[in-house]
Amino acid sequence: MFTPLFRRERLIRFSDCDPAGIVFYPQYFVMFNGLVEDWVSEGLGVGYAALVIDRRIGLPTVRLEADFTAVSRMGDTVALELAVERLGTRSLTLALRCVGIEGDVRMRMRQVIVLTSLENHRAIAIPEDLRRAIARAQER
Amino acid sequence: MFTPLFRRERLIRFSDCDPAGIVFYPQYFVMFNGLVEDWVSEGLGVGYAALVIDRRIGLPTVRLEADFTAVSRMGDTVALELAVERLGTRSLTLALRCVGIEGDVRMRMRQVIVLTSLENHRAIAIPEDLRRAIARAQER
Amino acid sequence: MFTPLFRRERLIRFSDCDPAGIVFYPQYFVMFNGLVEDWVSEGLGVGYAALVIDRRIGLPTVRLEADFTAVSRMGDTVALELAVERLGTRSLTLALRCVGIEGDVRMRMRQVIVLTSLENHRAIAIPEDLRRAIARAQER
Amino acid sequence: MFTPLFRRERLIRFSDCDPAGIVFYPQYFVMFNGLVEDWVSEGLGVGYAALVIDRRIGLPTVRLEADFTAVSRMGDTVALELAVERLGTRSLTLALRCVGIEGDVRMRMRQVIVLTSLENHRAIAIPEDLRRAIARAQER
Repeated sequence: MFTPLFRRERLIRFSDCDPAGIVFYPQYFVMFNGLVEDWVSEGLGVGYAALVIDRRIGLPTVRLEADFTAVSRMGDTVALELAVERLGTRSLTLALRCVGIEGDVRMRMRQVIVLTSLENHRAIAIPEDLRRAIARAQER
Repeated sequence: MFTPLFRRERLIRFSDCDPAGIVFYPQYFVMFNGLVEDWVSEGLGVGYAALVIDRRIGLPTVRLEADFTAVSRMGDTVALELAVERLGTRSLTLALRCVGIEGDVRMRMRQVIVLTSLENHRAIAIPEDLRRAIARAQER
Repeated sequence: MFTPLFRRERLIRFSDCDPAGIVFYPQYFVMFNGLVEDWVSEGLGVGYAALVIDRRIGLPTVRLEADFTAVSRMGDTVALELAVERLGTRSLTLALRCVGIEGDVRMRMRQVIVLTSLENHRAIAIPEDLRRAIARAQER
Repeated sequence: MFTPLFRRERLIRFSDCDPAGIVFYPQYFVMFNGLVEDWVSEGLGVGYAALVIDRRIGLPTVRLEADFTAVSRMGDTVALELAVERLGTRSLTLALRCVGIEGDVRMRMRQVIVLTSLENHRAIAIPEDLRRAIARAQER
């Protein structure tokens, strides 16, 4: 069972689609990047832009596995959903899904994100405010 | 004076920005493409996706002039605004602006869009439902 | 051991990079999409554009696993490499790598591509000319 | 008459195109951004990446005018061409064209680029090495 911690609806746009008329698959990762941004800022209350710009902390992806099970077309409204699978010391494993309005899964992925210093791109411990906010969100 | 017919707020995202930390300028055109999409669908009530997919009508840009007057940064909320400058037989001239929340203009452009058949990419007359909806919106 | 069937060097550009100054990870998938295009057209001698446009055949990704092991920066020249792991009836499993000039692996992925009809997005058998060209390339 | 100072051929890729099967127009600006990069690095011998990363100099666009005269399709090989219209103290006006192999113009634009400090995004004088290299290229 997939119980999302955070969810956003989004319209599939002309600019998301390829000459086959469906979402160009790298664009799913751009959409999920936006979802993580919104989750951190709005869901967790830790400003994403401030994290990157002021605190110089990066959230690069170190591993992902993705399954594309159905196409999404221009004009579709999809829901992007996020759950936390594992909260490590320096890394975070997310489960993400893109589903159609009727709940049909279009794409699902598991993504391991590492927190890094943007000075040297080395892994750092997840900042305390972010860790606490994630732990609290998981308890609910 | 710029009086927008249609307006949408949008967060500047990580994926909109370049290594200089500001919006990569081609991304403004992607944002405005989305604005035109929303205007046609929501503002005018003519389904944009149906126009392209079912009715096989394209809305390519044939000319644009753009001025970039201030930078937009990740985390900024901007307003994208649209006005109609000229409604021709086969073409449409739009004035578009991206402004910060305080009203400071970041970028403005004039864009000439032509309606085309997606079968042969030749110009066609603006479809009657779209023309009427635009004319009505201008009168208000 | 990874023995590439096809390889292309590519400059990491300003437009590939994010505000952290490194390749925005979805961009790796865009780069690999271009590599597959060049492999099909130049390596296998089966025109990729004709496949999509004239023959109405799609090559969507149904599964991928990717590991990001080191960052790539603007100005880096990287090699994109491709090997065939499995040639199925309707699908193709590729192993792909992005390596720096000194051979350091930046990103590697396994990608399952399915051949589809662009009329209905359903899987079809790999076209005979493409299958034969891949088989021949593997034998060499 | 347009006499290019710098020219590069480029294949129009799947990822450059939209659901109408033609180049998504913002993608022309991404292509030209790459052309300017190659011109600065290879044509002028002033490393573009070093300019941005080490010297912290930006080259944002402050104005552009573009005309789109014919479509480019996936699989087309186009030539991207660049000429210098004006070399100012802090700005540079370029004329750019995208032409098909038979010389048919697909898109042309005039672009004003300003040199800026990436610390504060304010205009600076064009660095001496870059200015001299451009002046030399124009004399040839």
